[in-house]
Amino acid sequence: MTELEAESGGSHIREIDRIAAFTDGVMAIAITLLVLNIDVPHLGHQQGGQLDEKLYHLWRDFLAYGISFAVIGRYWLIHHRFFATLARYDRRLVTLNLVFLAFIVLIPFVSDVIGLYGDIATAVIAYAIVLSATASLNWMIVSYGLRHGFVAPGKRSEIESFAGVRGVLVIVFFVISIPIAFLSPIAAQITWLLIFVVRPRLPALPHGASD
Amino acid sequence: MTELEAESGGSHIREIDRIAAFTDGVMAIAITLLVLNIDVPHLGHQQGGQLDEKLYHLWRDFLAYGISFAVIGRYWLIHHRFFATLARYDRRLVTLNLVFLAFIVLIPFVSDVIGLYGDIATAVIAYAIVLSATASLNWMIVSYGLRHGFVAPGKRSEIESFAGVRGVLVIVFFVISIPIAFLSPIAAQITWLLIFVVRPRLPALPHGASD
Amino acid sequence: MTELEAESGGSHIREIDRIAAFTDGVMAIAITLLVLNIDVPHLGHQQGGQLDEKLYHLWRDFLAYGISFAVIGRYWLIHHRFFATLARYDRRLVTLNLVFLAFIVLIPFVSDVIGLYGDIATAVIAYAIVLSATASLNWMIVSYGLRHGFVAPGKRSEIESFAGVRGVLVIVFFVISIPIAFLSPIAAQITWLLIFVVRPRLPALPHGASD
Amino acid sequence: MTELEAESGGSHIREIDRIAAFTDGVMAIAITLLVLNIDVPHLGHQQGGQLDEKLYHLWRDFLAYGISFAVIGRYWLIHHRFFATLARYDRRLVTLNLVFLAFIVLIPFVSDVIGLYGDIATAVIAYAIVLSATASLNWMIVSYGLRHGFVAPGKRSEIESFAGVRGVLVIVFFVISIPIAFLSPIAAQITWLLIFVVRPRLPALPHGASD
Repeated sequence: MTELEAESGGSHIREIDRIAAFTDGVMAIAITLLVLNIDVPHLGHQQGGQLDEKLYHLWRDFLAYGISFAVIGRYWLIHHRFFATLARYDRRLVTLNLVFLAFIVLIPFVSDVIGLYGDIATAVIAYAIVLSATASLNWMIVSYGLRHGFVAPGKRSEIESFAGVRGVLVIVFFVISIPIAFLSPIAAQITWLLIFVVRPRLPALPHGASD
Repeated sequence: MTELEAESGGSHIREIDRIAAFTDGVMAIAITLLVLNIDVPHLGHQQGGQLDEKLYHLWRDFLAYGISFAVIGRYWLIHHRFFATLARYDRRLVTLNLVFLAFIVLIPFVSDVIGLYGDIATAVIAYAIVLSATASLNWMIVSYGLRHGFVAPGKRSEIESFAGVRGVLVIVFFVISIPIAFLSPIAAQITWLLIFVVRPRLPALPHGASD
Repeated sequence: MTELEAESGGSHIREIDRIAAFTDGVMAIAITLLVLNIDVPHLGHQQGGQLDEKLYHLWRDFLAYGISFAVIGRYWLIHHRFFATLARYDRRLVTLNLVFLAFIVLIPFVSDVIGLYGDIATAVIAYAIVLSATASLNWMIVSYGLRHGFVAPGKRSEIESFAGVRGVLVIVFFVISIPIAFLSPIAAQITWLLIFVVRPRLPALPHGASD
Repeated sequence: MTELEAESGGSHIREIDRIAAFTDGVMAIAITLLVLNIDVPHLGHQQGGQLDEKLYHLWRDFLAYGISFAVIGRYWLIHHRFFATLARYDRRLVTLNLVFLAFIVLIPFVSDVIGLYGDIATAVIAYAIVLSATASLNWMIVSYGLRHGFVAPGKRSEIESFAGVRGVLVIVFFVISIPIAFLSPIAAQITWLLIFVVRPRLPALPHGASD
């Protein structure tokens, strides 16, 4: 690192923080919009006992809410860790980040579709397409950052696992689930659970945090 | 604290600030979505005098709005104070924080349910479940942070009350209100008022603020 | 100011910045929700020429959007200037700020009501009530900060006008418009224009900005 | 720059950062609201095969989503670069920024209109009006900042292209597309593609970023 670069470090951190803040904003809104997919049941002039039943029938909506919240939350965690290791960035990284966000914002939409039509192949495929695109872009962002030396040297090990074999496996499972969904929408959704098994663990936090 | 940890303090503060910023984003959106639950009445081609009446009939919605705004606002205050005392964090604290947010985001939903069906046991129970989960997670976050020594030594006293007996009482009252709601939805809602009586006071601000 | 307080200044600024960030979040969402009040017209299978007409009939919605955007934008400007002068804060200031936000969040609602029913007294009164409450809380926040010495000594002059006679006049005009609305909703709305005439000018920016 | 100004630099940066944060918030919400325009199809009790067809018929909505996401994302990028070069600001710049945001917030609305009625001249004109206003305000903000010397001297070259001939051409193409839309809505939309050809490239990042 030249002296010039070192000098401009503070201003770079400030700009990286702003990109992170914008990303946080979009992800915070996307994660909160998930709840708008759960419609409050309308009872008309009927008996109260039915609210019970109607809320119960929302279980699929609540499941879709829980899963999508976990998915966006996890990507936020990865993004948080990755940006904490960034020392520099370029135009392409910012563009990749925007495309990544465009798919994050689609998650509430496909989550709503799968909450309503989880037994229909098309709904499952729509979800798998958006999620595999999100996973691919996440992998591309981390790989790109590592490849171009934007990650602070001492911090590479913290995020290398996201760009490794396991990171690719997440994408593979989502892509594989697409043809499976044509045969059985349920089987495709079970394929997704494999992702949680092989998924790269979030790396330990740097020293200073007791983990 | 080792020299190494002290050195990395600035970067930790920056990461803690980003977690706080994301939390702020989610809570700010959840608190603002509350107003979407209040539907503007539609009059058709009728007389203007009816707007008066229709707006008046929204009093329950406005009450639900006010209470839920106060609840989320209060949790934000506690979160604000807690994160201001944090010197370190770990993976589990961040995950707990995400689960906490998942319940915060459900508050506009159950607030809408109770605004519409406040006299039905199921609606009251749904609200009590989400609120007791939120209170429990809030308690767990603060306790976890204190137990693992993430709170700056000089600042423990500022937030200990949230992890103490009174913090537990808030949870207890919400849980107790659930069986009560089966007998009387109104009585359950009165139980909640007890929470405001025993609720741990927000601790005084540190020196430098005149309080 | 004691040495102790001076020492903790950095951490205070960080906490004040977080309150400002949360406020920004709520105001940013409230200001953006305004556009959700403008419903895209649905044409069915009719001719395209009607879109023209239907969009034209939204002029009242666009006017309400423009005015409410200006109102929230202006309060954000005042809040921005006030928080830039703050050196300390206390619990009550944060609570006042939350109550202020609770009314800011109601602005999209009453803005929607007035966009739909601007010629009905009740709609005008609802808007006037929310706006006079917002103005009052804004006045209280600035006055409270000044009275308790939370404003950095050299910066008092920058924001004193918001707590002065003119600041009170804004509230007075909104309150006066309420009885007027019973006689004539249009006259009440004209009263509001007086506010823009007497409204305290935003003070000049501190040196360093060429204004 | 006088000593006095240099001294107050840190506090200016903090205030500029807050304006940027508020702008980020509004843009993050506007970009996320775009997805709310895509309505999940409702199938009733019909066959699943129809979801396929119904989702396919949303292609225009997805196209409008993609384009508007790219447009807002691009303005965010320009804003990000511009604010990173700002050393000072004044009242008028903040007001211009608010008016700019008022049009950014309208983009989800006109994007919805064009997604529904892309073959109707009025819809195309509404989109062109909002987009040319956004482009004009963006041009005005950058020009104003440059003209009044608010941009740090060493960073002028980074953003001058946004205030130059090419920046004006973007506005011109949007304005020209308005009369064209009366003759052919499709031709007007093709005019917009010219914008991507002549559009000023985002300038290279400053040293320190490898671009």
